[in-house]
Amino acid sequence: MTREMPRVVFTPSGKRGQVPAGTTVLEAARQLGVDLDSVCGGRGICSKCQISPGRGAFPKHGLTVAEDALSPVNDVERRYDEKRGLAPGRRLGCQARILADVVIDVPPESQLHRQVVRKAAEVRAVATDPATRLCLVEVAEPDLHAPSGDLQRLNAALADQWGLPPAACPLSVLSRLQPALRKGGWTVTVALHRGVSGPEILDIWPGFFEAPLCGLAIDLGSTTIALHLTDLGTGDVIASSGAMNPQIRFGEDLMSRVSYAMMNPGGAAEMTAAVRATLDGLAAGIAAEAGVDPRRIVEAALVGNPVMHHLLLGIDPVELGQAPFALATSEAATLPAAALGLGSINPEARAYLLPLIAGHVGADAAAVALSEAPETSDDLTLIVDVGTNAEILLGDRTRVLACSSPTGPAFEGAQISAGQRAAPGAIERVRIDPETKEPRFRVIGCELWSDDPGFAAAVGPAGVTGICGSGIIEAVAEMRMAGLVDGSGLIGSAAQTGSDRCRPEGRTQSYLLLDGAASGGRDIAVTQGDIRAIQLAKSALYAGARLLMDRRGVDRVDRVVLAGAFGAHISPLHAMVLGMIPDVPLDRVRSAGNAAGTGARIALCSVAARRLIEENVRRIEKVETAIEPRFQDHFVAANALPHASDPFPELARIAPLPRVDFNTGGSRGEGEGRRRRRPR
Amino acid sequence: MTREMPRVVFTPSGKRGQVPAGTTVLEAARQLGVDLDSVCGGRGICSKCQISPGRGAFPKHGLTVAEDALSPVNDVERRYDEKRGLAPGRRLGCQARILADVVIDVPPESQLHRQVVRKAAEVRAVATDPATRLCLVEVAEPDLHAPSGDLQRLNAALADQWGLPPAACPLSVLSRLQPALRKGGWTVTVALHRGVSGPEILDIWPGFFEAPLCGLAIDLGSTTIALHLTDLGTGDVIASSGAMNPQIRFGEDLMSRVSYAMMNPGGAAEMTAAVRATLDGLAAGIAAEAGVDPRRIVEAALVGNPVMHHLLLGIDPVELGQAPFALATSEAATLPAAALGLGSINPEARAYLLPLIAGHVGADAAAVALSEAPETSDDLTLIVDVGTNAEILLGDRTRVLACSSPTGPAFEGAQISAGQRAAPGAIERVRIDPETKEPRFRVIGCELWSDDPGFAAAVGPAGVTGICGSGIIEAVAEMRMAGLVDGSGLIGSAAQTGSDRCRPEGRTQSYLLLDGAASGGRDIAVTQGDIRAIQLAKSALYAGARLLMDRRGVDRVDRVVLAGAFGAHISPLHAMVLGMIPDVPLDRVRSAGNAAGTGARIALCSVAARRLIEENVRRIEKVETAIEPRFQDHFVAANALPHASDPFPELARIAPLPRVDFNTGGSRGEGEGRRRRRPR
Repeated sequence: MTREMPRVVFTPSGKRGQVPAGTTVLEAARQLGVDLDSVCGGRGICSKCQISPGRGAFPKHGLTVAEDALSPVNDVERRYDEKRGLAPGRRLGCQARILADVVIDVPPESQLHRQVVRKAAEVRAVATDPATRLCLVEVAEPDLHAPSGDLQRLNAALADQWGLPPAACPLSVLSRLQPALRKGGWTVTVALHRGVSGPEILDIWPGFFEAPLCGLAIDLGSTTIALHLTDLGTGDVIASSGAMNPQIRFGEDLMSRVSYAMMNPGGAAEMTAAVRATLDGLAAGIAAEAGVDPRRIVEAALVGNPVMHHLLLGIDPVELGQAPFALATSEAATLPAAALGLGSINPEARAYLLPLIAGHVGADAAAVALSEAPETSDDLTLIVDVGTNAEILLGDRTRVLACSSPTGPAFEGAQISAGQRAAPGAIERVRIDPETKEPRFRVIGCELWSDDPGFAAAVGPAGVTGICGSGIIEAVAEMRMAGLVDGSGLIGSAAQTGSDRCRPEGRTQSYLLLDGAASGGRDIAVTQGDIRAIQLAKSALYAGARLLMDRRGVDRVDRVVLAGAFGAHISPLHAMVLGMIPDVPLDRVRSAGNAAGTGARIALCSVAARRLIEENVRRIEKVETAIEPRFQDHFVAANALPHASDPFPELARIAPLPRVDFNTGGSRGEGEGRRRRRPR
Repeated sequence: MTREMPRVVFTPSGKRGQVPAGTTVLEAARQLGVDLDSVCGGRGICSKCQISPGRGAFPKHGLTVAEDALSPVNDVERRYDEKRGLAPGRRLGCQARILADVVIDVPPESQLHRQVVRKAAEVRAVATDPATRLCLVEVAEPDLHAPSGDLQRLNAALADQWGLPPAACPLSVLSRLQPALRKGGWTVTVALHRGVSGPEILDIWPGFFEAPLCGLAIDLGSTTIALHLTDLGTGDVIASSGAMNPQIRFGEDLMSRVSYAMMNPGGAAEMTAAVRATLDGLAAGIAAEAGVDPRRIVEAALVGNPVMHHLLLGIDPVELGQAPFALATSEAATLPAAALGLGSINPEARAYLLPLIAGHVGADAAAVALSEAPETSDDLTLIVDVGTNAEILLGDRTRVLACSSPTGPAFEGAQISAGQRAAPGAIERVRIDPETKEPRFRVIGCELWSDDPGFAAAVGPAGVTGICGSGIIEAVAEMRMAGLVDGSGLIGSAAQTGSDRCRPEGRTQSYLLLDGAASGGRDIAVTQGDIRAIQLAKSALYAGARLLMDRRGVDRVDRVVLAGAFGAHISPLHAMVLGMIPDVPLDRVRSAGNAAGTGARIALCSVAARRLIEENVRRIEKVETAIEPRFQDHFVAANALPHASDPFPELARIAPLPRVDFNTGGSRGEGEGRRRRRPR
């Protein structure tokens, strides 16, 4: 039935309203706030606005759709169908006009802010709402009688065709504006960035340019740098790449880099130059590898801890090395990417830096908060991002707290006698038979266990080279479970443990994982020093978490999320045996993978996400571990394996630990271990 | 009499109101909208807010001021007086509190937006309202319990102490923020730029920094570049400097530079680099010469014709060489000065480019319009800025019109046989005795006339080297007045004129100004070709003015203003004899000096002036001479000296021209000259 003001219902959004007969579907979608994509602004060029009209009765919506509810397929649509093909039933929303009551379905690929659900579990769905998008504009030709600049006529067209305020145009684009307009026959595609103070034209192409715009999600860790080249429209990762942080040569951990800056005039600038050069090299490489024109890379989103963040910006981190750990700036910032040395991508690309939470809790923690969204959870969730520094978040719908704890690099294999970075040849999994006390292990790059036939051949001539972070954690936890280590962290002697792999080393014992004489390589052992290093690291981590629990007034949490690239490799059971994390049912411990990188990618693709995390970071309650008197108490109490006083009932249920005590001095105070010595 | 709400009257503004007793004078001034300067925001440091309280009865204001109307002089004022001296009767407005009815005088030096009246007539009063100013702020120290960035606390202080929205902070300043705050004991002075999208911090100094901020007013001419280092607070010119435009080697006039860009790949970029390098060299030189720390130079305002403007911005001017003369951008723009190659001044300095009026009428013409303000005049005023291209404005309160006319470089001494630029040794003034037909002249750099005793010695060994623009105009006009040249521009022979200085040169005559044989130098003569060149130039100028008068529907104008550095040297009488300008009473012809440069200086020092000229330029009616059919008619008719058909009654009254006609062919049509031949 033809009406003057036909009713229209859009699915799946359910938005509905009435529009004057003859209104295009695209225009109706705009009026009703329906998310329908368009790059060409309704000229029948881009095909982004495809929709499917319904037919027949829709009792749910209270209307019936006639055959001729939309205007007949027109020439533009026929031409498009011939050239590129239009799926059956599909129409171009900018061409089809609403003549009568109609139900219109917007397929997912026509939604601008589409929700992308990825298969890999750790890759979160990313809602895209990019800061920079392509707009096709038809610009009026210059008129001698009414002289005005080409830029002013372009802006008039943007206002007219896209409803936008005047866009700023940097010199590098302005110098290409006139040739582009003339080459494109007064039609150009511009990359338009939604700046805080209005739109900015980042690039211009003659005519219709349809290759999707991309961005770089960058996770700037103290140890490693990871880049994800991402399609801004879909949120898809096109390619990933990474490198060691070149600042490692100035200092292994954060504080040694701060010291380097303090002790060496120009030292901070050196580290700034180093990381910028590496970042730009990675950007150039990933674009080349993925075959993406660097001009299409128009956005970057960066996360990192405060020292990494400040050094990247060219700020001397000296204030971060001493109380009160003052940040130069804590808020999110949008800068020209070129100002950060990213010269290989679009020269006008914009870089978004996520906000920092506090002097020790950086944009990486903010990115984890964005990715894991504890503020949306009914469960009280503890999120730990384990790295050289641990960032810890605790929260639910009501409150979110954050702190940072100086775990040091032991979890990454540093300060461990046979420690090494996670690389082929490193032991990453360890099992110790509780009866025989004999170990078996797996190394990175090899599918076999060390006691599988053909292991030596599979590992190759380089052999087993050392033990990485997850390997040492499992080794110590397995030693504890096998009764080779007591609750205070002491390794027992061969006599105490009954294992001749326990060998004296000075006044302490070590446990031999791999006999070099047998394997033809070096001995790989877990020393008492290694265990002390792991104890210090895990105590710091647990004490930070406990401090937040105190602040929140709880003794238990509902869920634990292990974030960080390293977190992905930690076995929850072994982490709990060591008392790295509070006691929870094992199935409530989840690895979030590289949550900081995911957070960077979410912010990269969505302005709404940027505003959300900026707002959330303002609300997060910051706890500074360095000045909390209880931190030291928690730290000391957490030294035991798993803990001197906090109960671990869940752990006791699934993996009761042997009650051993190898201390022969008799003056130690680690509780049960001392009281009930039960060597096996 | 003490009151709860004493009355306060500020002079000279006359603003009045009531404030709670105890309010400081500075605070009262702010509340009542009185213009009282302050850099330190009321901390008794900067002394900018000095005021003088009145005493006794003020019948005009209806109140009587008691001795103790203000609080007694306090320690801050006493200390200031001891250290720096406070004039008798002066108080610091931030310290003195209003206790009873009072009249308070704000002396000119305490007004922020002061009106500066200069002595030299051509230097216009400049109202200052600079885009960048100094603000002293006391910033809260960082707090471990409430972590926030130093920048965020600085912004909080700016909001609290100056009522400002959050300021953006570029990386170069952010990297110096933390040391500055600590060195200044949490007090810093920031240079704050009022950007279109909010304040921007351009620089930061520890503690109280009081050296005034400066700017560069830059007039970028096709031939010469002029810089004026200006105090942003007072509008005073501290130093001036200039150089030839280095683009001259790519082409003498605008169109030859456009051709160079068209014919040579990379040619536009070459010219861009050349002018930027020269500008930056001038900026560095003027700062050194004036002993001004380049960091204090935080603003620049630039004017130039469209080709100069586009080349400076790095835009190929090719479109300006052909109809429809499309500008890449016509609106005013604020850019980082460094983007224009101004690297020697403050690295974050901002450059303001005045708007362009049309494809041939540039930011220089806009600057003239700003300086001369025809839109405020009751008289219909014709403003001509004479250079290689003439920009012409015609208007009054009701309407302002603008056009440009291609005069070519003859007025600047180019294309003239003995022509040279205005430089020592060049003839700049010429007088010819109407009886003897003998010339006398003055050269640049010498006070004597050529017939004064000692002239040759005063000129020096280099002698007279040529004739400059104003010299050739006077020479031709004097020849016309002396009957050596007829109305058609023909030079008479010796026989026709009775002067043996008229000598045959090919088939035409020339007039010898200086006999090389006698002077020991070269002959300097005015040739028939020189006169033709001047005729072409002046016809273009007059035709443009006439076109605007047509459009306005008038035959006469009320006033003529000659702008341009060259305009300052043109004798109005001689210009009228040549018919360069329409006939008006001589006392209604005024030289405005370098009005474009003055306009640049006005815009440099005042945001209000920038908004005003942007608004006015939008309203100016643009006339494109190239497509006006009547332009050609006007051009041909203006070839005669002074004109073939337009009457010049004012000229006839003060300097009746001899009615001569030297055309022996008998077929010319220059009117009276031909009909009434009266050689003398």
